[in-house]
Amino acid sequence: MDKPLRRKAPPELIAELKTLLGDRLSVSTVVCDQHGHDESYHESAPPDAVAFARSTEEVSAIVAACHRFNVPVIAFGTGTSLEGHVAALEGGVCIDLMQMNNIIAVRPEDLDVTVEAGVTRKQLNEFLRDQGLFFPVDPGADASLGGMAATRASGTNAVRYGTMREAVLSAKVVLPDGQIITTASRAKKSAAGYDLTHLFVGCEGTLGIITELTLRLFGIPEAISAAVCAFPSVDAAVKAVILTIQSGIPVARIELLDDMSVRAVNRFAKLDLLEKPTLFFEFHGSSQSVTEQAEMVGAIAEEEGGERFTWATRPEDRTKMWQARHDAYYAALALKPGSKGLTTDVCVPISRLADAIGETRKEISQSHLTAAIVGHVGDGNFHTIFLIEPGNEKDLAEAKRLSSRMVERALEMGGTCTGEHGIGLGKMQYLEREFGPAADVMRTLKRAIDPKNIMNPGKVVRV
Amino acid sequence: MDKPLRRKAPPELIAELKTLLGDRLSVSTVVCDQHGHDESYHESAPPDAVAFARSTEEVSAIVAACHRFNVPVIAFGTGTSLEGHVAALEGGVCIDLMQMNNIIAVRPEDLDVTVEAGVTRKQLNEFLRDQGLFFPVDPGADASLGGMAATRASGTNAVRYGTMREAVLSAKVVLPDGQIITTASRAKKSAAGYDLTHLFVGCEGTLGIITELTLRLFGIPEAISAAVCAFPSVDAAVKAVILTIQSGIPVARIELLDDMSVRAVNRFAKLDLLEKPTLFFEFHGSSQSVTEQAEMVGAIAEEEGGERFTWATRPEDRTKMWQARHDAYYAALALKPGSKGLTTDVCVPISRLADAIGETRKEISQSHLTAAIVGHVGDGNFHTIFLIEPGNEKDLAEAKRLSSRMVERALEMGGTCTGEHGIGLGKMQYLEREFGPAADVMRTLKRAIDPKNIMNPGKVVRV
Repeated sequence: MDKPLRRKAPPELIAELKTLLGDRLSVSTVVCDQHGHDESYHESAPPDAVAFARSTEEVSAIVAACHRFNVPVIAFGTGTSLEGHVAALEGGVCIDLMQMNNIIAVRPEDLDVTVEAGVTRKQLNEFLRDQGLFFPVDPGADASLGGMAATRASGTNAVRYGTMREAVLSAKVVLPDGQIITTASRAKKSAAGYDLTHLFVGCEGTLGIITELTLRLFGIPEAISAAVCAFPSVDAAVKAVILTIQSGIPVARIELLDDMSVRAVNRFAKLDLLEKPTLFFEFHGSSQSVTEQAEMVGAIAEEEGGERFTWATRPEDRTKMWQARHDAYYAALALKPGSKGLTTDVCVPISRLADAIGETRKEISQSHLTAAIVGHVGDGNFHTIFLIEPGNEKDLAEAKRLSSRMVERALEMGGTCTGEHGIGLGKMQYLEREFGPAADVMRTLKRAIDPKNIMNPGKVVRV
Repeated sequence: MDKPLRRKAPPELIAELKTLLGDRLSVSTVVCDQHGHDESYHESAPPDAVAFARSTEEVSAIVAACHRFNVPVIAFGTGTSLEGHVAALEGGVCIDLMQMNNIIAVRPEDLDVTVEAGVTRKQLNEFLRDQGLFFPVDPGADASLGGMAATRASGTNAVRYGTMREAVLSAKVVLPDGQIITTASRAKKSAAGYDLTHLFVGCEGTLGIITELTLRLFGIPEAISAAVCAFPSVDAAVKAVILTIQSGIPVARIELLDDMSVRAVNRFAKLDLLEKPTLFFEFHGSSQSVTEQAEMVGAIAEEEGGERFTWATRPEDRTKMWQARHDAYYAALALKPGSKGLTTDVCVPISRLADAIGETRKEISQSHLTAAIVGHVGDGNFHTIFLIEPGNEKDLAEAKRLSSRMVERALEMGGTCTGEHGIGLGKMQYLEREFGPAADVMRTLKRAIDPKNIMNPGKVVRV
């Protein structure tokens, strides 16, 4: 690949932004460095300046100024993405949206909420709790909702409640020339024109910057219960998942931990789970309905050779169990102290999931690396966490090779190169592989909407 | 508006298509006339020729030829749209897709199916029944799935199962230059690149022609039950709907019939429902769960003054009830024999639904027209069926005036000008109103993907 062109923010632009934002425009090396990388292994590429915006109008003014100067603009939330999404490859201005953290309106009758892009998912849920409402999309990090929308994030609740694709009713977006649009009304459905909401959800800031979102909410269920069950093999666990979904049991979560992940969480969280492929379930509904769901899933698990099906209704037991799941990443890292993680993210049709995981496990066993697998298996999505010694090129190369093999297999199986982490700069080559000529349509869209290629350049599609 | 330019298919193009398709290319006046209009009041505009395609490759060849000759292409399914979607305003070639009616693959483990665009929803469900699966999206007509995707159709099950927006996992699309793309993999979720599936779903054939679809399926529920309840007012009925949804009761259907609609179906189907605003419910789940759902809804209905809450578990009672709902359009027409219907379609946030319907009812009462209201109220979507004397300009003008008022109010209330019928040519003016500067983004997309403006020109957005 050619070295990216530099389009450094010129002093005139910096001066203009300084006038607009005062102290909220920083060119300090420390601040710029903090904004040049996410949580992944991708190299840092600091912007020339960081603008801390407080309103859509400010974002619009910043973008319009950058547009005039032909300087790149990169939106920044919590910096918790995993594919190098925020690296300022050509320099330019980073817009940090975290001061835009107002919850603008909650409408319980309509089960929707309007938030600024910098509100995080946990902030929103804490705010909603007293009203008996919740927002279900839960990636690992306490990410900003704007960033989650921009990367089409999901998490453990997606099997029941959908991903950011389904969660966003409407977005306020600043276009590359600074113009502000609203992608849709608040109506729950609409057949009016092209679906602009879905065009900007998942565009990773390459077509525009999301500054405000209207999101679907759900009532906190009357009852929640959880269950854990070990299986003789990944195959048996996945069969239980398929039967559960086919039976129409409205499970809220079905998560797989492979034996290595179970070993890791046992040590990390002092649990005593059987060190076999294990499913974690959660059921939402009336108390009668969650009992019924758990019984039906228990019967399915037994059929597939499940052992020690344990049902947790006490909140403290559930919390302990889900904390263990959420800590799986750190638990895996602790298997080899001092290591860093390289996390993969593929999604396949569920009929191919056992094969996809099985072949991955086999390749891991033939490699010198240690790795744990966790999966949002109700959707066919799983992650491998490779443990890498920092600075060890051999480890990194091997993890990348295995990750690449996983993607190849996922594509052959009718799946996708990323279930929820996005393309960023790390997966651009796979985008071309996955979409073939359809990637040209993406290029056409990018060129039409951002002809100067100033919006997060060098990400998602090559232009 | 300027009179549309004519871009008649020249003899050379007709000859080329004749060579390609033989008898399956028709220039007969009768065939062209049949393909120039849908089921609405919009004037017919016949194409110059109708091509009956049998494969994606044929569609591609036809579109490529039209592209070379700069001649419009209009896709045609069952012709049951309601906003003039298929009128060949500038002439050109209509591609009838109804011979592409193969069900390519059903994958019960993945709960998905791949079909050609000409498969109708009823054909699909008949095919699926033996496998215990169903496809939930059910507009009034037995429409083709390609047409339903192109217009982002929905129906009575949308409150639980979503619309075509949620139903389509992936589409095969022929682009304006004849190139064939696949918009996505079969993975249940993906964060890979721009969302091309949602770009083409709802584009009404103005960006490309959908020739194949991969759709989500659901297991036929173990138990289905239904209930009917009359309410003292639309307001009380809508309050019951809001409480039902807020409580997280997973109702499969909640349909409203206003008193006029109930009167119509009583006469038409010889029922004896109370002639008051009435809700029809359907519950899907385990037998225990549907009982619980019905009881919970029964309690809510009682709180809101519901009368004669009747619960139907016998299939024949359910069928009778839903047949009455499905026949509501014909039942309304029968109130005034010889009349035609003009059907409106707005969708508002549910908190505004009672107001939206109430003000509509008030304006109807002040007009000389008879009209019935039915609504997919769980989504905030409702239709008014105005009874029009054929050829009576005063009736038509008044119905259009009232319809326009409904749209204005819906937009003021944060809603949309069309919940499920689409824009076609009938609602282009409202699209501009609803989206403001965002309509310019739609124009940008249209110009970028279809620079010659040959795909169903004169629909959705003005360019």
